Amino acid sequence: MIQVSIVTIGDEILIGQIVDTNSSAIAQALESVGVKIAGMYSVPDNADVMEKTLLNLLASTQIVITTGGLGPTKDDITKATLLKISGSSCYREDPGQLEMVRKILQGRGLDMLPSNRAQALVPDKAEVIVNKLGTAPIMVFRNISGKGTLYSLPGVPHEAVGAIPEIVSDIKKHFSIGEIVHSNIMVYGIAESALSELIAPWEDALPADMHLAYLPNMLTGIRLRLSSYADGTTNILERQKAQIGKLKAILGDKIYALKDTTLEQALGELLLERGKTVSCAESCTGGEIAHLFTSVPGSSAYFLGSVTSYAVSVKESVLGVDPAVIEKNGVVSSEVAAAMAEGVRKLTGSDYAVSTTGLSGPSGDGINPVGTVWIGVAGPHGTITRKYCYKSDRKRNIERFASTALNLLRLYIIED
Amino acid sequence: MIQVSIVTIGDEILIGQIVDTNSSAIAQALESVGVKIAGMYSVPDNADVMEKTLLNLLASTQIVITTGGLGPTKDDITKATLLKISGSSCYREDPGQLEMVRKILQGRGLDMLPSNRAQALVPDKAEVIVNKLGTAPIMVFRNISGKGTLYSLPGVPHEAVGAIPEIVSDIKKHFSIGEIVHSNIMVYGIAESALSELIAPWEDALPADMHLAYLPNMLTGIRLRLSSYADGTTNILERQKAQIGKLKAILGDKIYALKDTTLEQALGELLLERGKTVSCAESCTGGEIAHLFTSVPGSSAYFLGSVTSYAVSVKESVLGVDPAVIEKNGVVSSEVAAAMAEGVRKLTGSDYAVSTTGLSGPSGDGINPVGTVWIGVAGPHGTITRKYCYKSDRKRNIERFASTALNLLRLYIIED
Repeated sequence: MIQVSIVTIGDEILIGQIVDTNSSAIAQALESVGVKIAGMYSVPDNADVMEKTLLNLLASTQIVITTGGLGPTKDDITKATLLKISGSSCYREDPGQLEMVRKILQGRGLDMLPSNRAQALVPDKAEVIVNKLGTAPIMVFRNISGKGTLYSLPGVPHEAVGAIPEIVSDIKKHFSIGEIVHSNIMVYGIAESALSELIAPWEDALPADMHLAYLPNMLTGIRLRLSSYADGTTNILERQKAQIGKLKAILGDKIYALKDTTLEQALGELLLERGKTVSCAESCTGGEIAHLFTSVPGSSAYFLGSVTSYAVSVKESVLGVDPAVIEKNGVVSSEVAAAMAEGVRKLTGSDYAVSTTGLSGPSGDGINPVGTVWIGVAGPHGTITRKYCYKSDRKRNIERFASTALNLLRLYIIED
Repeated sequence: MIQVSIVTIGDEILIGQIVDTNSSAIAQALESVGVKIAGMYSVPDNADVMEKTLLNLLASTQIVITTGGLGPTKDDITKATLLKISGSSCYREDPGQLEMVRKILQGRGLDMLPSNRAQALVPDKAEVIVNKLGTAPIMVFRNISGKGTLYSLPGVPHEAVGAIPEIVSDIKKHFSIGEIVHSNIMVYGIAESALSELIAPWEDALPADMHLAYLPNMLTGIRLRLSSYADGTTNILERQKAQIGKLKAILGDKIYALKDTTLEQALGELLLERGKTVSCAESCTGGEIAHLFTSVPGSSAYFLGSVTSYAVSVKESVLGVDPAVIEKNGVVSSEVAAAMAEGVRKLTGSDYAVSTTGLSGPSGDGINPVGTVWIGVAGPHGTITRKYCYKSDRKRNIERFASTALNLLRLYIIED
């Protein structure tokens, strides 16, 4: 099995100024095609450390992928090190990357400085994959000291992520890796341990060539990933589909999508498909639900708007919640959640509306424990409310409240 | 200078399932007290790799800090490795951690299973710092093979972060590290390159013992950090304050705080201090501003609420924007930004209100380029609007729009 080391280069990682998200994105992409990550490393902008680390890793793993160390102000150390360990004798100017540097500067209305032009210089043994998103080139060095292959990627996260498909396809071309077929099943509304217990008989009965992975996430629930190595003889996707059919019979509407997606994406597709619109009224989630809805490009086709009614006065004046209802039941109550959802639905004229009222923390209301939320969903066939209790800090409670609200809305719509 | 290696343990990091935020948090804390991180490493749940990596690192750096590998289902490999390399002969049950395990399970209404009780087992050479946030203990091994010190922290991010102050104080106790004095200056509304040029004369004239670092962030602007080693002879904080006084004369209201904070925190303090309230009307930011305001504990004291008016109809019906104004100027316009801010201010009865209308992308409106935003601020002394253009993707445009809006509101309030 091909083994890969991932190395980030740069003092900014080692002083904790930046969280390294590149390594994880690269690992995810490689793991999904069956390439194993042996280790991850972060080294400073120091030629000796860099050289020693890269040579060691090239001796122990077939592929080393680096990100960073290539900005216009700190090209020198990294490129000199790559020149040295690749046995290059000089730098050459790469015409493809130079053209890209010119284009990018033009787009920003800037003149080309010598430091910009130098970005297109690469050690002469480097193959260049043009970086279409930035000025630093993507470099490939093959057979370093007769050993491994080194890929050098830019450090800027969207440039590094943008380079991943090219790297994966280059690895597929030059190394013999088995192809893996994945199917994703998105599940919400059940804890990982309970899910694992519930589907254990199904999991145990899976064919020997299928492997199941649990990939949980606070906002999107649990992604179940069914994987098999492609053997060329059978229709694997069809066989996976048959297994997923059995899983659907067990999990029912806990499954919200059969692809890698998010609740807000899946909800958006559901609303688009039915030609319906939605709005929300948020108290304790404070705008997070609206933020999730509108993070989806094209959401303006179904998301009309929202009211964050943090103050009781706004619940009353904007959403039209009856003060007597608040007085009688308290703000964190089924009645207020219902009135908020109904209020914002009327206000915006949307088909559906979802609301939250609860306590994200740190302070409570003296009646309900921190982590309590009432969620309301209003639609053409009436209003429902549900109470949930979570035990976490403010940030994570807000995330759980918001994703739970999206899921309750989804369940209401599919039953509608 | 004391050198530290940071190691994360766990397959979930190497398959890219989890982004490692622990290493960065630990590095930041140590860097701020003058301890240098020599490298960061991620290793799989594999005893051989773990043992080899840890022993190598203990030979080259005085301190190794690990996170992870300690969950109830995968304790075995990590603890066995720590037992072996620390020269421990057996496990002992730590009474302090056992008590904590009992408490935590009780709080969740769960019985103690053997796998829970095993969490309190540690190699006999381990000193235990009780983890108050979870069941896995924090372990300290001193003089492993006569060499370095190893700190083993839990992998769950809030538990790892919670352990940092204890680790820092233990390092301060057992190693001689110079004390560093920091002052933070939060700056918003100027690009890093322009800031660096503007304050170059001031920076060049800093006393030799003071060092300046630029720590930029999309949502909070640029944190300038002035650092000096404490030498016990002079009042360093006073001397730093004198330099900051000179910096204030150059940057004026671009400085929004003299401590490590965020725009929404600083705004909250400003509003609390003046006893004023705020609301917002969001179009293109889709709830992000409300989300930022309400991410601050206690924000209900000044944040009344918000309207996310994604649909034009909601701008008209809820915020009372005159359809003729939209017809004449377009949705992305100064006039609509002003009307939105005034509308939500009236609706909620807040002292101040801020609004956004623009194009976060990917699709534009055929008139304004993607990345254009009009921001409005309404208050007791009239309404102002400003136009900004950014060039980024949807997610980052939303973040920039939101933080720019918070900053414009801040400038309005301090001039008020």
